[in-house]
Amino acid sequence: MSTTQTNKIEIIKASTSKIKDVDFDNLHFGDVFTDHLFECDFKNGEWQKPIIKPYAPFLMDPSSKVFHYGQAIFEGMKAYKDDNNDIWLFRPDENFKRFNNSATRMAMPEVPEEIFMEGLKQLLQLDEAWVQKGNGSSMYIRPFMIATGAGVMANPSDEYKFMILLSPAKAYYSGEVKVLIAEHFSRAANGGIGAAKAAGNYAAQFYPTNLANKEGFQQVIWTDDATHTKLEEAGTMNVFFRINNTLLTAPTSERILDGITRKSLIEMAKSEGINVDVRPVLVSELVEAAKNGSLKEIFGAGTAAVVSVIKGFSYQDVYYEMTPIENSYASQLKEKLTNLQNKISEDAFGWTVKV
Amino acid sequence: MSTTQTNKIEIIKASTSKIKDVDFDNLHFGDVFTDHLFECDFKNGEWQKPIIKPYAPFLMDPSSKVFHYGQAIFEGMKAYKDDNNDIWLFRPDENFKRFNNSATRMAMPEVPEEIFMEGLKQLLQLDEAWVQKGNGSSMYIRPFMIATGAGVMANPSDEYKFMILLSPAKAYYSGEVKVLIAEHFSRAANGGIGAAKAAGNYAAQFYPTNLANKEGFQQVIWTDDATHTKLEEAGTMNVFFRINNTLLTAPTSERILDGITRKSLIEMAKSEGINVDVRPVLVSELVEAAKNGSLKEIFGAGTAAVVSVIKGFSYQDVYYEMTPIENSYASQLKEKLTNLQNKISEDAFGWTVKV
Repeated sequence: MSTTQTNKIEIIKASTSKIKDVDFDNLHFGDVFTDHLFECDFKNGEWQKPIIKPYAPFLMDPSSKVFHYGQAIFEGMKAYKDDNNDIWLFRPDENFKRFNNSATRMAMPEVPEEIFMEGLKQLLQLDEAWVQKGNGSSMYIRPFMIATGAGVMANPSDEYKFMILLSPAKAYYSGEVKVLIAEHFSRAANGGIGAAKAAGNYAAQFYPTNLANKEGFQQVIWTDDATHTKLEEAGTMNVFFRINNTLLTAPTSERILDGITRKSLIEMAKSEGINVDVRPVLVSELVEAAKNGSLKEIFGAGTAAVVSVIKGFSYQDVYYEMTPIENSYASQLKEKLTNLQNKISEDAFGWTVKV
Repeated sequence: MSTTQTNKIEIIKASTSKIKDVDFDNLHFGDVFTDHLFECDFKNGEWQKPIIKPYAPFLMDPSSKVFHYGQAIFEGMKAYKDDNNDIWLFRPDENFKRFNNSATRMAMPEVPEEIFMEGLKQLLQLDEAWVQKGNGSSMYIRPFMIATGAGVMANPSDEYKFMILLSPAKAYYSGEVKVLIAEHFSRAANGGIGAAKAAGNYAAQFYPTNLANKEGFQQVIWTDDATHTKLEEAGTMNVFFRINNTLLTAPTSERILDGITRKSLIEMAKSEGINVDVRPVLVSELVEAAKNGSLKEIFGAGTAAVVSVIKGFSYQDVYYEMTPIENSYASQLKEKLTNLQNKISEDAFGWTVKV
């Protein structure tokens, strides 16, 4: 854990707001940002004075380590506004912990809790008008850290920049998605960085996903790289399978992200009396279950999408489509979780934190 | 292959040169850059007008894809100045091909050959005073491409920046290195991006390498992630083993970089009458050979280091040190290759290209 000399955030306000130009009814995920951002630099072995300032491009040296050696991590979080205009975060402590786990794996300095949490809260307070109510609206929050040190020697940077961006959001996916089960490409190695929210993990998925797109599939379900027999993640989400009335999902590992939506859904499903089995799920049992009709649902789980229903999957050139189901676990759990996040229902789990 | 509208490079010269401030006798690898850089942007589906301009920081949007999803690739090359003050590149066609292979794997646009090669040559001509002669001097060349498109949706960028930086260099490693054979951590997955010079591959190595450093080892020899029984790469280099009088190195694969120094050394060794065996090399046979005395040499091969002698290795907490050897293949091949690169000896392979 790095020390910090700072305990107060400097705030420089934008002279005008861009909010009047934003069509909140027609937002695309991740391309509109609020008026301000939070920034804190790490140099000389410690975190410098944090600042909230107008969202704007910043200068980078062409030899910055992030460009050459990819030291970059991020988190995805959401904030919600309730009917009293209070803003709520969902399990921010989990994002904070995972952010610093990612930092450690990528040989980057940990961000002090005070900087992460206070930065987040004060930024949300300043741009609170941008946090919309109702209809699946939320504020997507993107904390990230990049290596800003100069020089092309292949070793960890000595300077970093931690930032938080805010992007108003509706739903991430529209409609149901078809997925391709990976038979050759992989997301993560044993002993690799698959459990970290490292930037490079995502770029690695674009090419195989593009190939899947060309075949009419929106996402890839990743399998273990050594045998391609175990189902691991779906695109940028964790993945759940319902066989008869049991909900299956892979255990987290070095290869699989410890998703906060994933762990929340597991806990919520159990509290609903759903049988949840966290264990390696084989491609062969998925295919068998699809064939014999016991496969009822597949869905992805992540912060951006919350729950994303998967309509069908392809494996070894055979496409298996799900039969639409009433009272699906996906819709039941999505409704319960989003109601909890939006403070429409009571938070029996203590997951929501007021800003 | 992307099209380009451009056929002429705009050149903006620096008003003064920084060269007088550089101590060429005491260079550290990768922290001094020349007066100019080459830049070409990709947007609206095509490469824009290329430019050579003074080396300087540039503006990036905080939501640039390279920061969040790690689309970033690079190459490492060297130029040498001969006694007639001519500048020579070493197999630049190989770097160009590999750069575009990396681009494809990372869902980035290919750079046209004209932009890559003309950019390289004109930049070297402009900063030719920085290319020093003799004593292992060279100009390290760093072409790289980053995703500059804005927005935190997890898909490939629609805008990119291709740049070339020049950094005057001496030798990369000083002295001999001790290495740790990876028993848990890995560099690359089957079906992953290990064969690409993708930025994220390097950041992934920093943490395991830091752990090895703490135990007194300078580098890690990576093994296959599934079984940790096969020797793959050493740090950021390919790796060769001499058992009796046979030189062994792993075949290239999805997990192993197709190193240009590696393939040059293989060809050169064969032409010297050395028996070269390109096949998977097992950790068990290395340990056995170290025990029975048949292991004569280990060395890394890469552009930055050319050849880097490995003094000893540790596996399962046992350290095996090499007995110093006369007429080593490492020194023989390094001398032949650097003489060829520096135009001290004849280039029978046709690998050197005049700028």
